[in-house]
Amino acid sequence: MSSSSTAGQVIRCKAAVAWEAGKPLVMEEVEVAPPQAMEVRLKILFTSLCRSDICFWEAKGQTPLFPRIFGHEAGGIVESVGEGVTDLKPGDHVLPVFIGECKECRHCKSEESNMCDLLRPNTDRGVMLNDGKSRFSINGQPIYHFVGTSTFSEYTVVHVGCVAKINPAAPLDKVCVLSCGISTGLGAALNVAKPKAGSTVAVFGLGAVGLAAAEGARISGASRIIGIDLNAKRFDEAKKFGVTEFVNPKDHDKPVQEVLAEMTNGGVDRSIECTGSINAMISAFECVHDGWGVAVIVGIPNKDDAFKTHPMNILNERTIKGTFFGNYKPRSDLPSVVEKYMNKELELEKFITHEVSFSEINKAFEYMLRGDSLRCIIRMDA
Amino acid sequence: MSSSSTAGQVIRCKAAVAWEAGKPLVMEEVEVAPPQAMEVRLKILFTSLCRSDICFWEAKGQTPLFPRIFGHEAGGIVESVGEGVTDLKPGDHVLPVFIGECKECRHCKSEESNMCDLLRPNTDRGVMLNDGKSRFSINGQPIYHFVGTSTFSEYTVVHVGCVAKINPAAPLDKVCVLSCGISTGLGAALNVAKPKAGSTVAVFGLGAVGLAAAEGARISGASRIIGIDLNAKRFDEAKKFGVTEFVNPKDHDKPVQEVLAEMTNGGVDRSIECTGSINAMISAFECVHDGWGVAVIVGIPNKDDAFKTHPMNILNERTIKGTFFGNYKPRSDLPSVVEKYMNKELELEKFITHEVSFSEINKAFEYMLRGDSLRCIIRMDA
Repeated sequence: MSSSSTAGQVIRCKAAVAWEAGKPLVMEEVEVAPPQAMEVRLKILFTSLCRSDICFWEAKGQTPLFPRIFGHEAGGIVESVGEGVTDLKPGDHVLPVFIGECKECRHCKSEESNMCDLLRPNTDRGVMLNDGKSRFSINGQPIYHFVGTSTFSEYTVVHVGCVAKINPAAPLDKVCVLSCGISTGLGAALNVAKPKAGSTVAVFGLGAVGLAAAEGARISGASRIIGIDLNAKRFDEAKKFGVTEFVNPKDHDKPVQEVLAEMTNGGVDRSIECTGSINAMISAFECVHDGWGVAVIVGIPNKDDAFKTHPMNILNERTIKGTFFGNYKPRSDLPSVVEKYMNKELELEKFITHEVSFSEINKAFEYMLRGDSLRCIIRMDA
Repeated sequence: MSSSSTAGQVIRCKAAVAWEAGKPLVMEEVEVAPPQAMEVRLKILFTSLCRSDICFWEAKGQTPLFPRIFGHEAGGIVESVGEGVTDLKPGDHVLPVFIGECKECRHCKSEESNMCDLLRPNTDRGVMLNDGKSRFSINGQPIYHFVGTSTFSEYTVVHVGCVAKINPAAPLDKVCVLSCGISTGLGAALNVAKPKAGSTVAVFGLGAVGLAAAEGARISGASRIIGIDLNAKRFDEAKKFGVTEFVNPKDHDKPVQEVLAEMTNGGVDRSIECTGSINAMISAFECVHDGWGVAVIVGIPNKDDAFKTHPMNILNERTIKGTFFGNYKPRSDLPSVVEKYMNKELELEKFITHEVSFSEINKAFEYMLRGDSLRCIIRMDA
């Protein structure tokens, strides 16, 4: 379909629908309504699977919301724009992002925050802001959105604030991974942990986000990068990302923070937690050196988790801070991260371990659940 | 006694000894041994009472260690120096400090830390490092030290690394309060919280440390300084220190962090916790604005406390960090804080609400326990 013929019309297209928690997605024909005010409709060309999709699809520690179209890491092209959209036009190459940037609120105007008041992630909301309704339906039954992106569909509707316009020369099958995980890990290191040259950095979780954090630590000049993962299969691959040492908590009888303290004469300089496990968060905090250590929390916890530590661990001049999306503001900052790839400062190919056609999307889930994949690109046209 | 006649000799002098937890101090004649290697013996001229003395004297949430000579905020003159001491000589005007600076360890060499490996506060140790023994005794019975300072004695022995040499023109009866509480609060604001001009700062606890933090926030240009205290008597006095608004948690049915969020459209920019109460620590963290808020923990918790919060509070781009002594390195930085007083950038008189003679030292405890005093100066010669 050309954009001229579909603008303002309902589009019927393929989408992978999650009908129930933990059950394979089902390829369905869905109706995608036209974009409303301040919305854009995107044709998704490539999407990839991120751990957060799995967490909310499993819905073990999260509020279940079904039927739903998951997917939030993608690259696409603007098909049509709604009323009031002036920054984007049909044909623009874009990355949809789960965290938005309205450019008007105190967060968007703050140099320190990217947690836009209007468009911050809301994992419990499955509808669009403009009218509180979904743009997806099957025979009149609404299908919920996921974090405002729902990229497991040939077409999706996204708020204009959640769309980063990028260099049209950038290959979307590569840079699509920047729309969540890789930027999240990279930014957590470069923008938040900010390790000094020669320092020691611990990275908890050697999935794509953790390896991107390791990549950021390497770019920052860290001399020791210690990867922690319960899955020893990760370790060989992680060497490609600059990880110099490995710890599998299963190999030790004592808490991993004690193992790390022994390896590093008292603690690491920086730690970056990329698992979402509350135990890893606590370990990541307690393993940083007193006096100067900074722990950065990236993973999404379960809703009933409690972060618990002795307050002396804080008082002893440790810092803990959280970050979404590596503190990048999506519209303002993401185009420059794409340029890092174009300038070969940043390699993305090594993150992309698998590729499947859209009809095989459940295989991408299997690869990640088995711990085999970093990023699996899902080709929408295949 | 002149220093020349006493150097190398045991000095018999008056000290206020705590024989039991929570019982009035008893004026005793103690023997003070000469300083050993890297130690100095000080003649204390003025000391003041700090909340931490009370916490460890009450020993409710702390390890009891008695008999003990408390006191860690003081001004004095070097009486004699031990072997290897080259930086100080008899007659130097000094402030003893509970946190030391060896100038050799990784912390002392780090720009970020003041938690000297050798001389960090150890509240459970009642002896000197050199030989693991006390320099105080009564009829041969050792009396324990407190945080390496024990200034409730006419003479005390301190590690050279815990002694800041200051401008001899500075009045010791005023600048003695810089040796703990006032520097702690001031530095927590100026060196750690670093509020921006125009920002909103919450200060938990309006004792001397909290008011010094408020003073630091005011110097930094904060436009709203919200004081939180369970004792409404504090509020009038706090206005002198730039506190613009007050919250007494007892006046509200909801957690104080919710009250603060409502007052500030979502949270304060910075908070500084100066009570040592674990609930205040949690509130101080949870009351900072997401996206950019920074909470600074200053108060000393009880040993069985647990800091507990939902990890989303961290992930939402809040920061929490702890600090001792306002991140000042005592030997390197304290002389310049004294100069701030000498240059009238910093007013100390308003912190000094009471004065007693040494023989009346228990009155100082009563004033603080009743919440009447900020700082009570104890004159050793009276």
